[in-house]
Amino acid sequence: MKTDKVKKIYKNIHTKLINEISLLDDSIKLNNTKWRHIDSGGGISCKINGSKYIEKAAINFSSIRGNKLPESALEKSGVQEIRKYNATGVSVIIHPLNPKTACSHLNIRFFEAKHKGGNVWWFGGGFDLTPYFITNGDMLYWKNEARKLCDKYDKSFYNKFNSHCNDYFYLPHRNEPRGIGGIFYDQLNKNDFEFCSSFSLDTANTFIQAYSNLFNKRKDQKFSKKQREFQLYRRGRYVEFNLLHDRGTLFGLQSGGRVESILMSMPPLVSWNKINKEFDQYEKSLNKVFNSARK
Amino acid sequence: MKTDKVKKIYKNIHTKLINEISLLDDSIKLNNTKWRHIDSGGGISCKINGSKYIEKAAINFSSIRGNKLPESALEKSGVQEIRKYNATGVSVIIHPLNPKTACSHLNIRFFEAKHKGGNVWWFGGGFDLTPYFITNGDMLYWKNEARKLCDKYDKSFYNKFNSHCNDYFYLPHRNEPRGIGGIFYDQLNKNDFEFCSSFSLDTANTFIQAYSNLFNKRKDQKFSKKQREFQLYRRGRYVEFNLLHDRGTLFGLQSGGRVESILMSMPPLVSWNKINKEFDQYEKSLNKVFNSARK
Repeated sequence: MKTDKVKKIYKNIHTKLINEISLLDDSIKLNNTKWRHIDSGGGISCKINGSKYIEKAAINFSSIRGNKLPESALEKSGVQEIRKYNATGVSVIIHPLNPKTACSHLNIRFFEAKHKGGNVWWFGGGFDLTPYFITNGDMLYWKNEARKLCDKYDKSFYNKFNSHCNDYFYLPHRNEPRGIGGIFYDQLNKNDFEFCSSFSLDTANTFIQAYSNLFNKRKDQKFSKKQREFQLYRRGRYVEFNLLHDRGTLFGLQSGGRVESILMSMPPLVSWNKINKEFDQYEKSLNKVFNSARK
Repeated sequence: MKTDKVKKIYKNIHTKLINEISLLDDSIKLNNTKWRHIDSGGGISCKINGSKYIEKAAINFSSIRGNKLPESALEKSGVQEIRKYNATGVSVIIHPLNPKTACSHLNIRFFEAKHKGGNVWWFGGGFDLTPYFITNGDMLYWKNEARKLCDKYDKSFYNKFNSHCNDYFYLPHRNEPRGIGGIFYDQLNKNDFEFCSSFSLDTANTFIQAYSNLFNKRKDQKFSKKQREFQLYRRGRYVEFNLLHDRGTLFGLQSGGRVESILMSMPPLVSWNKINKEFDQYEKSLNKVFNSARK
């Protein structure tokens, strides 16, 4: 099974991501939990709480196998009558304390299955940035790092994966993008396994390098109480997206995954009280960058 | 159309509910918004923010009409090929500041439609209580008020509607009830219109009377910082229920309803950080009452 190979690679990158994120804030506490899935498989959930820069972060590795799949998993894949599957993945979500630094998310995953027509495998994943306050320059840096990653592999990747990311990280009920995007891909198996596996690994490496650079540049910037309140308010959008639309979350909950791990990515503190007139101005500035990011 | 009659009754009860809830906290500010639905119809959203006892409350009236219905609306109803429908309702959600007082929810609604086989109408609704700290006595009082309401109409109602409430206000992904329940009913039309309409109105009256009694008894009780944090943490369950399972929320979002009204019921401040060892003890006490409530 290719899954065994991917598991090793993903476990290593999981450890590396924990180390890199630990470098961002010397006040953080790590809380590792190993867990087992009710069918089979398990994972390592690493929860981070910091008091200086990182309010909460979750860095999860999981590898589960089973026979039946919930509907959400195979939508649009064309694969039917699964007999056995493996789903292995690493995900990161970072909720910083300072609203001038952005929330960000990474996911890399590998899926392998035996089905009616034979064997099938693919990679999926991506990263995106959800800022509360951001300059045009920071937005361009983020998008450019994503483009550089893609171009190393296939000149057609960036436009496709960036637009896939824009489509996916969108809140239809609010008619709003979730953030400035990045890349997002699924069912990647057109090239050989080594090519795809290397792209998956590089997705994680590019994410942590680009995020760390943006984070360190902004983490000591001053912010007001109102700006912090705006951050808590905007985090509500993140929660809405996760529980209403996120396929990973819905797949996890439907397949009997470990709730504490699946929902570990939820923001530490969220508000649904829009009470400040300043928020309109903040949102206007934010939407301006969101719009440029989609051009 | 029976809808016109119900609209008048519901508008009156909407005003009454606003007045009664205003009596609970003299620090509250009312914020009324009238809105129009993209298809047709509209509503009045009343948002309340208080600084003493009621952190946030939403008291909404809405009446919408249309031709197409989203799937979630007619699940299990057997009604097909809708040509025209009206959905009128009043809903209340109260998020108190003091964790010793409970969060609570009321909904009454009326549905009327022309379909392939003729005309159809029904009432639905109910109320439930989501406490953070509660005594067995308060739980029994709440359940008993619900039973008294039901028994006035039909001796078979309470057991049916209470168990429907227990089934509905349940978080399958956590294997947990949302609170101590109450009553919940749907597609009520077996008796005549006057009977059902009167039961619907009494549902709202019983709710506000029973809730006010419990609220006033507890609203000045002291609470610790940890207890407040526990409240914010438990409010996360409320958000999860609303966005993952609540049919009203999903119906509203799918049918292009006004997002600010539909999500107005979201808690003002929520936390997904379980960091206190005290929480286990609080949850143990709470689950004990939850379990008695389901007997």
